[in-house]
Amino acid sequence: MREILALTERPGVISFAGGLPAPELFDAAGMRVAYAEALAEGVADRSLQYSTTEGDPALRAAIADRLTVRGLPTHAEELLVTSGSQQALTLIATVLLEPGDTVLVEEPSYLAALQAFRLAGAAVVPVPCDDDGLDPEAAATLAERHRARLLYTILTFQNPSGRTLPTERREALVAAAQRTGFWLLEDDPYGELRYRGDGLPTLAALDAQVLSLSTLSKIAAPGLRIGWVRAPAPLRRPLAIAKQAADLHSSTVDQVAAARWLEAVDLDRRVGDLRRAYGARLDALLGGLAASLPPGSEHNQPDGGMFVWARLPDGWDAAALLESALDHDVAFVPGYPFFAGPPDIATLRLSFTAHSPAEISEGLQRLRGAWT
Amino acid sequence: MREILALTERPGVISFAGGLPAPELFDAAGMRVAYAEALAEGVADRSLQYSTTEGDPALRAAIADRLTVRGLPTHAEELLVTSGSQQALTLIATVLLEPGDTVLVEEPSYLAALQAFRLAGAAVVPVPCDDDGLDPEAAATLAERHRARLLYTILTFQNPSGRTLPTERREALVAAAQRTGFWLLEDDPYGELRYRGDGLPTLAALDAQVLSLSTLSKIAAPGLRIGWVRAPAPLRRPLAIAKQAADLHSSTVDQVAAARWLEAVDLDRRVGDLRRAYGARLDALLGGLAASLPPGSEHNQPDGGMFVWARLPDGWDAAALLESALDHDVAFVPGYPFFAGPPDIATLRLSFTAHSPAEISEGLQRLRGAWT
Repeated sequence: MREILALTERPGVISFAGGLPAPELFDAAGMRVAYAEALAEGVADRSLQYSTTEGDPALRAAIADRLTVRGLPTHAEELLVTSGSQQALTLIATVLLEPGDTVLVEEPSYLAALQAFRLAGAAVVPVPCDDDGLDPEAAATLAERHRARLLYTILTFQNPSGRTLPTERREALVAAAQRTGFWLLEDDPYGELRYRGDGLPTLAALDAQVLSLSTLSKIAAPGLRIGWVRAPAPLRRPLAIAKQAADLHSSTVDQVAAARWLEAVDLDRRVGDLRRAYGARLDALLGGLAASLPPGSEHNQPDGGMFVWARLPDGWDAAALLESALDHDVAFVPGYPFFAGPPDIATLRLSFTAHSPAEISEGLQRLRGAWT
Repeated sequence: MREILALTERPGVISFAGGLPAPELFDAAGMRVAYAEALAEGVADRSLQYSTTEGDPALRAAIADRLTVRGLPTHAEELLVTSGSQQALTLIATVLLEPGDTVLVEEPSYLAALQAFRLAGAAVVPVPCDDDGLDPEAAATLAERHRARLLYTILTFQNPSGRTLPTERREALVAAAQRTGFWLLEDDPYGELRYRGDGLPTLAALDAQVLSLSTLSKIAAPGLRIGWVRAPAPLRRPLAIAKQAADLHSSTVDQVAAARWLEAVDLDRRVGDLRRAYGARLDALLGGLAASLPPGSEHNQPDGGMFVWARLPDGWDAAALLESALDHDVAFVPGYPFFAGPPDIATLRLSFTAHSPAEISEGLQRLRGAWT
């Protein structure tokens, strides 16, 4: 995948392959101020020094406030700041998984999560999914059969599928976890990026025993590597010990600056700006996608996030189409690497966040040219 | 240890317990400029975005230049940027160690390294040490007996002992590793902090197969969490894959700012300033330490670094002395947690970097009061 993604980054290619936030939408001016404040006289000595493993107190408080406003009442001490939510995945794998343990995942699922679980020696078992995400009853059956330790889900605007689990399935999933006794790990990087409809309750809001992780990467900027895990009480100290072994603590400068930024920014307005811009890009993609894929292809219509999931007609191979697409200076990601079980090679993922609606339309025209 | 260290941080305590660089010696002004440049228009888009796992190219080049100037010819592509050298330890453990593997360490050794190796399931075996550090012949014998996979050493101004391995032992250690077939991992956070005498060759300068790691924490600031590992070619890709699973990449902002700082600063002059200031603090500690410890105590006389190692007379317990010391508002760290084998409870570690010579003298007077 590293090699494929390198090809899609060739200059001149309109790439739907990445999953990057749009850099022109970064609040660079606000970040400049936040870092200047973090390094101002009287503050710099602390920002440049070693810090606590659990995270900067002001940052934890600011994140807790945001989660609370969004419907998940949270105290700062429930949070462990991590170096992006990727690190949270690895720490959770370290703390919860022994080699041979089973982790249930959506099918398809987030590639880096699959890798983190496998690196911990876990067996990754896919749960059947439809357009609404995973089937809670199938999850319960598989959990019992494999004595699963953990179920990992991106339940809103999933990567790679863009799918969102409806409320009743969320409730059924929580009930299944309580009944069968496996940990639920919800990853929510995209929940704030909703362009239509109303937000749904997180699993953590339904059950105090859920591990919940997210990140500033999508609403602030990924370069800061600020993520967090909201963990049930018994897991907090083991996670902090794993974090201490991993990197002592996350960058103090970035944490102090992120806290300042969160205190200063009108986050609802900023998220509103992102929603408007990304929503227009999603509309541009959805408006032209059907005509740009071979007849008989299907794709979903997410209400938010960064990704649309498509399937070519039976017999088509998305990797082969990508080769032809690259000849036409347009790219996407074949879906096969995201499968934990037998891959569906006709699937593909398209990201729309990094291009203007006009570029997206041009990209779709090129994509049409790749198979006509 | 977390609990002990918390006590030593009580206001009013003169603490020789920590291992913190002096915040008043941070180049806060230079860091302000570096971060402002990293977030300037035209640069911010890149600094706030996802980046490559291996590290910012300009930062890798700047670190390679510094290593080359210091006598270890290095190309940027030999380096993997890590989130502090703590992360480098964990990544190396992930890549090189299987549960049950043996890691040789100095006795005493760096606590967080012991934890990282144990977390990877390794058996940690101490190599006998004297005032000049580890015994290469004993290391060779133990390596053969235990089929050791790795030997970890802080070979210059070791933490906790302040010891430095002489050149002939370095050469003997490299020869032993080549003969017996174990990996050498040298950790060199303190090599730049030499206050007397001439620098010694690193193990990596003697043998291309050595893994070598260091950090900007001591010469720039620890809050940035910028470390690196210089790895032999066959280990570079496995380490990058482990890093990708751990946190995708280190903070882009911090890396771009660190590169700018390294390009702008006169590092020889800055390190010279640190050496002068810390050297005076070391002199203040060494000048009064013998009179401040119970008669019959011993301590070493390092030429640099951050730590002095002492031993109370037989029958004394450094942990008990610490309790009394805390009553007199002075603190140090008992040596016992740093031992991989049976601990010598009469030992203790004193750090001198975070206090002025006058504070150090006052702290030593208090220490004397703790047992007289």
